Amino acid sequence: MAKNTSLSTESYKGVRDFYPEDMAIQNYIFNTWKKTVEKFGYVEYTASILEPAELYRAKSGEEIVNEQTYTFVDRGDREVTLRPEMTPTVARLVAGKKRDLGFPLRWYSIPNVFRYERPQRGRLREHWQLNVDAFGVPGTEIDVEAITLAYEIMKAFGANDSDFGIKISSRKLLNAIFSTWYELDEQKSKALQKLIDKKKKMPEEVFAVEAEKIVGKPFSFLNTQSSEYQEAMAIPVIREAKEELDSIIETLNKRGIKNVEYDETLIRGFDYYTGTVFEVFDTNPENNRSLFGGGRYDELLALFGGESLPAFGFGMGDVTIRDFLETRNLLPKYTSSASYMICIMDKSATDYADQVAKELRNEGKNVCVNYSYKSIGDQIKSALKQSIQYCIVIGEDEVKNKTYTIKDLTKEA
Amino acid sequence: MAKNTSLSTESYKGVRDFYPEDMAIQNYIFNTWKKTVEKFGYVEYTASILEPAELYRAKSGEEIVNEQTYTFVDRGDREVTLRPEMTPTVARLVAGKKRDLGFPLRWYSIPNVFRYERPQRGRLREHWQLNVDAFGVPGTEIDVEAITLAYEIMKAFGANDSDFGIKISSRKLLNAIFSTWYELDEQKSKALQKLIDKKKKMPEEVFAVEAEKIVGKPFSFLNTQSSEYQEAMAIPVIREAKEELDSIIETLNKRGIKNVEYDETLIRGFDYYTGTVFEVFDTNPENNRSLFGGGRYDELLALFGGESLPAFGFGMGDVTIRDFLETRNLLPKYTSSASYMICIMDKSATDYADQVAKELRNEGKNVCVNYSYKSIGDQIKSALKQSIQYCIVIGEDEVKNKTYTIKDLTKEA
Repeated sequence: MAKNTSLSTESYKGVRDFYPEDMAIQNYIFNTWKKTVEKFGYVEYTASILEPAELYRAKSGEEIVNEQTYTFVDRGDREVTLRPEMTPTVARLVAGKKRDLGFPLRWYSIPNVFRYERPQRGRLREHWQLNVDAFGVPGTEIDVEAITLAYEIMKAFGANDSDFGIKISSRKLLNAIFSTWYELDEQKSKALQKLIDKKKKMPEEVFAVEAEKIVGKPFSFLNTQSSEYQEAMAIPVIREAKEELDSIIETLNKRGIKNVEYDETLIRGFDYYTGTVFEVFDTNPENNRSLFGGGRYDELLALFGGESLPAFGFGMGDVTIRDFLETRNLLPKYTSSASYMICIMDKSATDYADQVAKELRNEGKNVCVNYSYKSIGDQIKSALKQSIQYCIVIGEDEVKNKTYTIKDLTKEA
Repeated sequence: MAKNTSLSTESYKGVRDFYPEDMAIQNYIFNTWKKTVEKFGYVEYTASILEPAELYRAKSGEEIVNEQTYTFVDRGDREVTLRPEMTPTVARLVAGKKRDLGFPLRWYSIPNVFRYERPQRGRLREHWQLNVDAFGVPGTEIDVEAITLAYEIMKAFGANDSDFGIKISSRKLLNAIFSTWYELDEQKSKALQKLIDKKKKMPEEVFAVEAEKIVGKPFSFLNTQSSEYQEAMAIPVIREAKEELDSIIETLNKRGIKNVEYDETLIRGFDYYTGTVFEVFDTNPENNRSLFGGGRYDELLALFGGESLPAFGFGMGDVTIRDFLETRNLLPKYTSSASYMICIMDKSATDYADQVAKELRNEGKNVCVNYSYKSIGDQIKSALKQSIQYCIVIGEDEVKNKTYTIKDLTKEA
């Protein structure tokens, strides 16, 4: 309790403090998410940020478990992880009560998730993430719904079709090509997948050389115009996967979602995807990056010992979308949830001020009373600093006449 | 990725999973909190669960820092704590931007907080807590407001005045008695305070003996009828503290809050309290326990190097209030936020089903479409399992006639 060494007011590195202005933006984003996904019948669930570490050992992709998680041993010798993503948790919950739950099941959550990495623009150690998951639909109707929902969320934020695009691809198609056409084993398939994931970050020639190393011959498959590609389409498992993908795009187009296109290089990080994957990206040429995405993961639930269960989900982070909305000027202006400040001229007016506050609250208004007994000028300055819209001054006259005037501070000269 | 050792579906020990039914209760509690505190002009803020460990070394009370926190060293050799309570964080935030903030400042948050202790009924390792804090009011108006707000929250949950009581006490009064009447030093004062805190858990005689050991003579002070108590009231600093406490109770009574009483043994755990402390308790004789509470902590902000700042706050946990509401049958019945399920009789009806869903969503309804193509009986069973109220069956006839019937599943025989 030594007062000479004062405490720092800084937060922990790479996480954020949410002062009311930031909280209001956060609430705006969360509420827009909630409203949109609930319209599609998704219901909310959540869980603790603390999860047994083993949950992430299975399928998240090794890099994440080993280097990028907050994992520690508790005093009971249990290895605990601060969840780095929500999908393993939702799979755990659904697997845990599979018999009691009705399917198709549509769930969403807005958890905070943690990554232990060097903080940089758009990449923090803690962020919140909308997670939308549907279980029990084997058909592509749910692929279409998830992508529609992603589109509707962007529209609900006020984005135009030209502000963002949707890339879509299929792990099923890739896997069919890898195993049937190139006859790659699982290890080589994974290596090639990882390479394709990084394709856009390397020169064409480097990619070609590296791909040939894995495949054992030139890998021309990402060129859909190549003769090899056309030939491969004669193989049923490949053709069917491609037709499935085409039908999803076609249905989306038919429903008015035109900014969607097949991207052969789209992989999405996680190992657990088994079918369609998609990504919403920013079309701003100066910031042409991924905003969010997801895909089908039909095998994940089998890890909990039961049968596999068709599943499709996506995640959308608060940092990325906030940045997108800021750049495009789509965020609402801040005003305090406290709409009224009652300023008191003299202590003797307090009782009446409290009475007025009570009446306004009964009318559903949010009202704070300024008990500082400072000058009215100072009190109004405080209301302005807090972005409180209305102010009511209560003094001797108001007490005597039992009346008061409401002043709109946003309309002051 | 070995499938033979399947993953556990259990959560980490002492934390909860929130399936939709539990989430709905959580949302009900959170929304009731939010609505009530916002009426009093409190605005929302939040922060990360990760805080520098040093934040809790200063004033939280030693037991908490040393034995009951989740604290670990990160890879950058920083000591990090999962916040055990929110007050140090709110103090950090206010101290950090004191110049930019308008006062009086009213803030609230609903953070999850962590305690590393053996899980038991009502005591979990993670729980959520409403935190309500007001800064910048030195007078007792804010003591009255905080207790009024606590009362209003209980009423908003549907509790009757007879279901709960409010105990109130004053650290200022106790400290004045300790230092002026008994002439105890800080260490002895703290020891006596801790003893009084545990008074109700020990036989009267044990308390008397232990108290005499600390004080050096019989400690009769908790008997407000004793002559010693009456004599002490002649000392201004003691009398003023008592009068302040009396005036708070009187004002509350005048405003219709009658279930409030002075409890001389009320301490509340934290070291940082400096004035009024209060506690709301369950009047159920079988479960006569503390529900929540708080108090004045005028010195805490000085720890951050600036001046001290008048502050008053309280915290209210979700586990305790949920338990209270369950016991008294005050929780709302669960129905899904998804109000409609559209059941499809045949795949050919899907397009029209999707069209109906779209129309209903445009009317503001929350609608899910059952793409399972199972029997209608199975689909309705799924809706019932999920507590979805309405169902619409779309088959050949509906497609042809472009009409449909809405069935209320809560009114089925």
